[in-house]
Amino acid sequence: MMNKKTIEKLEKMGKKIINDLKTGKNPHIDIPIRSFSNIIYSKSSGKLSLGDKYSKRYFLNVAHSKRFMQTLLVASFCKGLVDEDIHASIRDMYYNLKRTLPGTKENTFDEQRESDPIIVDLEVALDVLREDLHLTTDRKGIIVGNVVIKDRGDLIDWSKLGSGGWSIPSTVEEIEIKKVDAEFILVIEKNAGFERLHEDKFWKKHKAILVGTGGQASRGTRLLIHKLHDEFKLPVYVMTDSDSYGWYIYSVIKSGSMNLAHVSESLSTPDAKFIGLTISDIYKYGLEKMSIKAKDVDIKRAKELMKYPWFQNEKWQRELNLMIKKGIKAEIEALSSRGLKFITETYLPEKLKKKDFLD
Amino acid sequence: MMNKKTIEKLEKMGKKIINDLKTGKNPHIDIPIRSFSNIIYSKSSGKLSLGDKYSKRYFLNVAHSKRFMQTLLVASFCKGLVDEDIHASIRDMYYNLKRTLPGTKENTFDEQRESDPIIVDLEVALDVLREDLHLTTDRKGIIVGNVVIKDRGDLIDWSKLGSGGWSIPSTVEEIEIKKVDAEFILVIEKNAGFERLHEDKFWKKHKAILVGTGGQASRGTRLLIHKLHDEFKLPVYVMTDSDSYGWYIYSVIKSGSMNLAHVSESLSTPDAKFIGLTISDIYKYGLEKMSIKAKDVDIKRAKELMKYPWFQNEKWQRELNLMIKKGIKAEIEALSSRGLKFITETYLPEKLKKKDFLD
Repeated sequence: MMNKKTIEKLEKMGKKIINDLKTGKNPHIDIPIRSFSNIIYSKSSGKLSLGDKYSKRYFLNVAHSKRFMQTLLVASFCKGLVDEDIHASIRDMYYNLKRTLPGTKENTFDEQRESDPIIVDLEVALDVLREDLHLTTDRKGIIVGNVVIKDRGDLIDWSKLGSGGWSIPSTVEEIEIKKVDAEFILVIEKNAGFERLHEDKFWKKHKAILVGTGGQASRGTRLLIHKLHDEFKLPVYVMTDSDSYGWYIYSVIKSGSMNLAHVSESLSTPDAKFIGLTISDIYKYGLEKMSIKAKDVDIKRAKELMKYPWFQNEKWQRELNLMIKKGIKAEIEALSSRGLKFITETYLPEKLKKKDFLD
Repeated sequence: MMNKKTIEKLEKMGKKIINDLKTGKNPHIDIPIRSFSNIIYSKSSGKLSLGDKYSKRYFLNVAHSKRFMQTLLVASFCKGLVDEDIHASIRDMYYNLKRTLPGTKENTFDEQRESDPIIVDLEVALDVLREDLHLTTDRKGIIVGNVVIKDRGDLIDWSKLGSGGWSIPSTVEEIEIKKVDAEFILVIEKNAGFERLHEDKFWKKHKAILVGTGGQASRGTRLLIHKLHDEFKLPVYVMTDSDSYGWYIYSVIKSGSMNLAHVSESLSTPDAKFIGLTISDIYKYGLEKMSIKAKDVDIKRAKELMKYPWFQNEKWQRELNLMIKKGIKAEIEALSSRGLKFITETYLPEKLKKKDFLD
């Protein structure tokens, strides 16, 4: 169904250009502007999005025509992918489209950094995701829990994957979620934390879906969190290190990032809440000796985060101020100083029971 | 069973120290030396290993006693893990063991870089893997194929995981491989390549087990490749970019790395062969325009690889020489210039049919 919609959008763009040519008009494509001045944060939806400023890319314009041609090449390539129902990476696409125009020394593309931004142009111009265009992104992220899905004809039970887990692919659109027996989604930044919680069967005891992002969450992982939350109204709690980088990981899962503002509708989960680590936790759980001196860059990032619209509440402002004032940070693993099972048996259960979250 | 062996080794070390103390001797631990001078390559086994030089770490020696104490702390921590049958990351361990000695200002460990090398000391002193000590390493790597395993009580069918795959954990010792219907193992460096081959069901058509390493293979991934090869005598073919970094990834899977020479017995697979990309492939498959100029560091690394014992054969020397002479390299994705399914339908089948491998 998504495939059909994408094809329609691509064909509509193509037909408009053909029509312009037939009627003697100079064909152009409207491309919304992605610069900071056109990025809007909606307080009601909690998401970043693009405003209504756009630029026109013309065929008959010396400054535009190469990019115009490149845009159509990429659009045509993507239509091929969707038609054939196969996927390719953006690097595969670059190599596939790279060639020298017959009779000239002009290449379609000289480097991948020429073809990459065209994909984003198409995403915004057509209001689709690159995943809808069947372009894959690097996969990262693991998931386990009491969930059964159907994907490419296989029934997959995320609760029966041993010590491993399901490796989250880059495209999750076609996944059908058949059965969910879980009360919330716990997203953890670190693979080591994922392994500890997984081994302790935290997800089984607490009826959770456990997601390991392995650092900044991949697009596939963010799409899957969004999808699970959207379809089953499950609360999402994010756990990261107590530092600016960790909080930014949370922030991206929650509200999207500036450079992907145009797709945050599908990629972000504004209802996500932050479960820890906070700077206050360092004092509350006696981790002072396990804390680390914050670097200048941590402090600088914390000051930036303080200005983000979705950090405009008392709790977050207090935490960010506390970090700046005390000049410390801490890793999730610092909890292990209280015992290896402290995170599973004390820290998380207490937080969940008291609903001790940051919004 | 492995747990029992590890406990025995740890206890033997502990008992020897207690005995030394009781009989008035200065307790010490023998630790094999890991420097370059004590690393040996065995041509017959095709593996790196440590020679018989070792150092003694004494309790009553001002220069040794802190490290001696740290070694016992780590050994005791690991014994606890194995006894309880739980796992921890090396960072968890650091935080768990970090404390101030009562009545002093002396910390057991000040930084993780003090505790990390102690783990390697124990690996070599006891001839165990850190995985046997229940210390996890960062996970990376995905696997699919006609294989059924049993892990933590779950039966997992690697052929029924949709577009995802099984996320390879850091410890694979306890995995029981129940059924294998495959003729070889194909290891691919890049996630994008894994996705393409997976989508095209390459592993189904060619009866392969498909492993994606996502760059340098993690220890867990290397252990799993070793295990599958060892137990089922499956040939292992490795595919990487045609550059020094890619070939080094192959080299580590095949023969181990210098800094892990002490564990290459379990981590390396000397029978592994290299299936591509080679520099010759660039010319053979008309990828000249898709090749990239090699950087100085590529050339330098290629010259180093030429000296490695396991690159001492005509084919490898020719390839390495060719790269140095032509000054080019290429990425796996360059094959997509011949069509997105070229890798699945032409390149790999041809290589497999002609047994066109580098050893």
